[in-house]
Amino acid sequence: MKERIAVYPGSFDPLTLGHIDIVNRAAKLFDRLLVAAIQNPGKTPLFSLEERLQILKSTFAEKPEIEVDTFSGLLVDYLRQKESFIVIRGLRAVSDFESELQMALMNRTLSPDTETLFLVPSARYSFLSSSMIKQVYQLGSEVPSLVTPMVDRLLKEKFGKG
Amino acid sequence: MKERIAVYPGSFDPLTLGHIDIVNRAAKLFDRLLVAAIQNPGKTPLFSLEERLQILKSTFAEKPEIEVDTFSGLLVDYLRQKESFIVIRGLRAVSDFESELQMALMNRTLSPDTETLFLVPSARYSFLSSSMIKQVYQLGSEVPSLVTPMVDRLLKEKFGKG
Amino acid sequence: MKERIAVYPGSFDPLTLGHIDIVNRAAKLFDRLLVAAIQNPGKTPLFSLEERLQILKSTFAEKPEIEVDTFSGLLVDYLRQKESFIVIRGLRAVSDFESELQMALMNRTLSPDTETLFLVPSARYSFLSSSMIKQVYQLGSEVPSLVTPMVDRLLKEKFGKG
Amino acid sequence: MKERIAVYPGSFDPLTLGHIDIVNRAAKLFDRLLVAAIQNPGKTPLFSLEERLQILKSTFAEKPEIEVDTFSGLLVDYLRQKESFIVIRGLRAVSDFESELQMALMNRTLSPDTETLFLVPSARYSFLSSSMIKQVYQLGSEVPSLVTPMVDRLLKEKFGKG
Amino acid sequence: MKERIAVYPGSFDPLTLGHIDIVNRAAKLFDRLLVAAIQNPGKTPLFSLEERLQILKSTFAEKPEIEVDTFSGLLVDYLRQKESFIVIRGLRAVSDFESELQMALMNRTLSPDTETLFLVPSARYSFLSSSMIKQVYQLGSEVPSLVTPMVDRLLKEKFGKG
Amino acid sequence: MKERIAVYPGSFDPLTLGHIDIVNRAAKLFDRLLVAAIQNPGKTPLFSLEERLQILKSTFAEKPEIEVDTFSGLLVDYLRQKESFIVIRGLRAVSDFESELQMALMNRTLSPDTETLFLVPSARYSFLSSSMIKQVYQLGSEVPSLVTPMVDRLLKEKFGKG
Repeated sequence: MKERIAVYPGSFDPLTLGHIDIVNRAAKLFDRLLVAAIQNPGKTPLFSLEERLQILKSTFAEKPEIEVDTFSGLLVDYLRQKESFIVIRGLRAVSDFESELQMALMNRTLSPDTETLFLVPSARYSFLSSSMIKQVYQLGSEVPSLVTPMVDRLLKEKFGKG
Repeated sequence: MKERIAVYPGSFDPLTLGHIDIVNRAAKLFDRLLVAAIQNPGKTPLFSLEERLQILKSTFAEKPEIEVDTFSGLLVDYLRQKESFIVIRGLRAVSDFESELQMALMNRTLSPDTETLFLVPSARYSFLSSSMIKQVYQLGSEVPSLVTPMVDRLLKEKFGKG
Repeated sequence: MKERIAVYPGSFDPLTLGHIDIVNRAAKLFDRLLVAAIQNPGKTPLFSLEERLQILKSTFAEKPEIEVDTFSGLLVDYLRQKESFIVIRGLRAVSDFESELQMALMNRTLSPDTETLFLVPSARYSFLSSSMIKQVYQLGSEVPSLVTPMVDRLLKEKFGKG
Repeated sequence: MKERIAVYPGSFDPLTLGHIDIVNRAAKLFDRLLVAAIQNPGKTPLFSLEERLQILKSTFAEKPEIEVDTFSGLLVDYLRQKESFIVIRGLRAVSDFESELQMALMNRTLSPDTETLFLVPSARYSFLSSSMIKQVYQLGSEVPSLVTPMVDRLLKEKFGKG
Repeated sequence: MKERIAVYPGSFDPLTLGHIDIVNRAAKLFDRLLVAAIQNPGKTPLFSLEERLQILKSTFAEKPEIEVDTFSGLLVDYLRQKESFIVIRGLRAVSDFESELQMALMNRTLSPDTETLFLVPSARYSFLSSSMIKQVYQLGSEVPSLVTPMVDRLLKEKFGKG
Repeated sequence: MKERIAVYPGSFDPLTLGHIDIVNRAAKLFDRLLVAAIQNPGKTPLFSLEERLQILKSTFAEKPEIEVDTFSGLLVDYLRQKESFIVIRGLRAVSDFESELQMALMNRTLSPDTETLFLVPSARYSFLSSSMIKQVYQLGSEVPSLVTPMVDRLLKEKFGKG
């Protein structure tokens, strides 16, 4: 049996417990899972690519089957380089579904072998998004039940409460 | 590496090219794929369980990594019996998504390890459903571009045109 | 310029002001509009095909550009017979949209020239459906603001209040 | 201040923890809450109206602000009789939303003062429906985490496992 | 009976007849209604917070049960300060529903007692949004049937037609 | 019979095979079709209005029933000037549907005769959008199967690969 590698791409700006839920589910499905933070030239993230990589690294340090990485450019090029054809994405809601479907079909057009697998997070994370997390901390509050202690601390530092 | 088995459950009443598209995609992702026709006590299918099994068997006869089977009762019980925790489902549209999400979360409640993976069929099958196929043949027409020759022939027989 | 004929198929069980709104909009778009009640073998309508035809006839009697008709079988066969390739459908809500899209694409598969045009009814009819109308009258109430006086009277007769 | 009474109508066939979640939320919003099981002539429920009323009674026995009741006919007639104009409904998903919206606007047409309030259940009940619960018990399994002990016991009795 | 206060937060940039429709519906449900314009640091509104407050004040001047206010920061902090736990939001369409659901569940995470109630506006305002109103006036047209005379006049002034 | 003119407005930044699919479908429905690129003051397009007009002109040069044009300001003003009341729009997905519905109803408010017709593109273009095309070329890749050779060449020039 050939080793199968799946890639979970995302902004992870910042990583939430919803992302970690998807990572843990996906890691059981394949031999290796690459969690890959996207360097998106058009957007200005709150956390730098380096910071997001550090958060991923310390979060999954003890899971040998999970690797963390970053990439820029097209996802299909990154997949080819990593000898993977499997993309993991979490599906929370209908609005997710339509843009994700569009991306999955475009990636298949760019590279016909690419297969996008959609996983459903735990119901308790179904409403969670990084942008909503950032908004809460920016307005001076906190949601330690939805992020790791490290992300909670970094968010407070970013918004001057650290 | 332990062998990973995925289960693709469905009514397959009858099998369409949309189902076959999902089967071929899923078969590349795991070591073995079980395509399992459901014996649903509440519904009266057009094709008997035996007929649906025969169609599946002859369709995937030359693919050793694909097994076909039938089951009744709960999907999670069938998974346990087959030593699988991976469920494959195709996602065509928003209306699919919501009922599928509901089933995926219920299966997770019944058996916490169960993971449902959603795959997107080729865009040209995005509007295809078994019930629409049956309706077309029942009204005396045919869509040989959307089913296998065997299913096309059987549908004509069922509706008195064979 | 060749005459263009559009077909507005539906159950019209019974006709509502929402249907009439779509008919009036569609009639302005093409040279002739055929409003065609479907004889659906699988369903048992409240109003017989003959009754539904009578309602349509008396409703649109004074509009020469609107013809009323009935048909059974496939819509694409009916279109061919009437030398039309244009199907009119009303779109009220997201749930309509998905099943309508599926039918439009299936009709295109059966007859590639078929074009389905979706029209939006007036906002005040956006929540209206024949089945909801029937339910209201069945439970002993009435909604004269959502149907014609003729349909209001017939519904009361059907449910023993005429 | 005049006493405000809200009505939470439903089939409750059977009552789930999702319904109870909505009841508890709604009871805090108004002076009295009427939980009213619908006698729907067109449907054959698993639990009789009397059984459903018994379940509701014993579930909310210790909450004086919650009354339980049954009704048949139009909801707006029942509201009038109870001197209420406030309808409570739970909203789980997009598919709920569209049919609920349609009903809310029809009820407003029948009785302009009627106001439907949509409440969101706890995320952990977002996928829960009575019909899915019944299906699970019918297939010989159980989900004691999603119903009360009384409903769990009654479901087992209904399906011959009590 | 303790007095119940509900809060209807929004940008109201500018207030439309759709907002007013929701305000009038919500005001009947509770003892007091606070209509609260949000000071959102990330957005640049067309109307200043002061202008939006003035519009709200003159619109609801004769309704003693309706108070108008402004706030910045988290909604749950504002609720606490006003001794309210009831949030009112209008639901027009499916796309509204998903983002509103996300916010409602996040607010419940931040403050477990918070209850968001969704009300449906009159069907004739179902397509109405402040941003579409602004776009129409910016392009030199007007929709006096969808805003108050005061807002109509102020929009013309903003876009140099006053 | 009076000549009927339909208008297909859009950004066309750039034109895709999905747009061309809709143009060809719409051109069969009416006597003349005006494909009109929008000059939107708020957005900065990748292709100037002049470039978009050139692409449209050379694409539809041999179809006498199709005219190309540009406009700024309100669509309803442009329709009036062109003596048309028929707007053509493509519908790909649920998310399209809701914003399109909102625009169609607003245009009807501004000019009651305006009728928006929604056409469904070929299933193979159901996931296609100009913005996704631009993103692919910006990241250094290409999708010649989804645009014309002219657009493919111009996109490469824009992103420095010409």
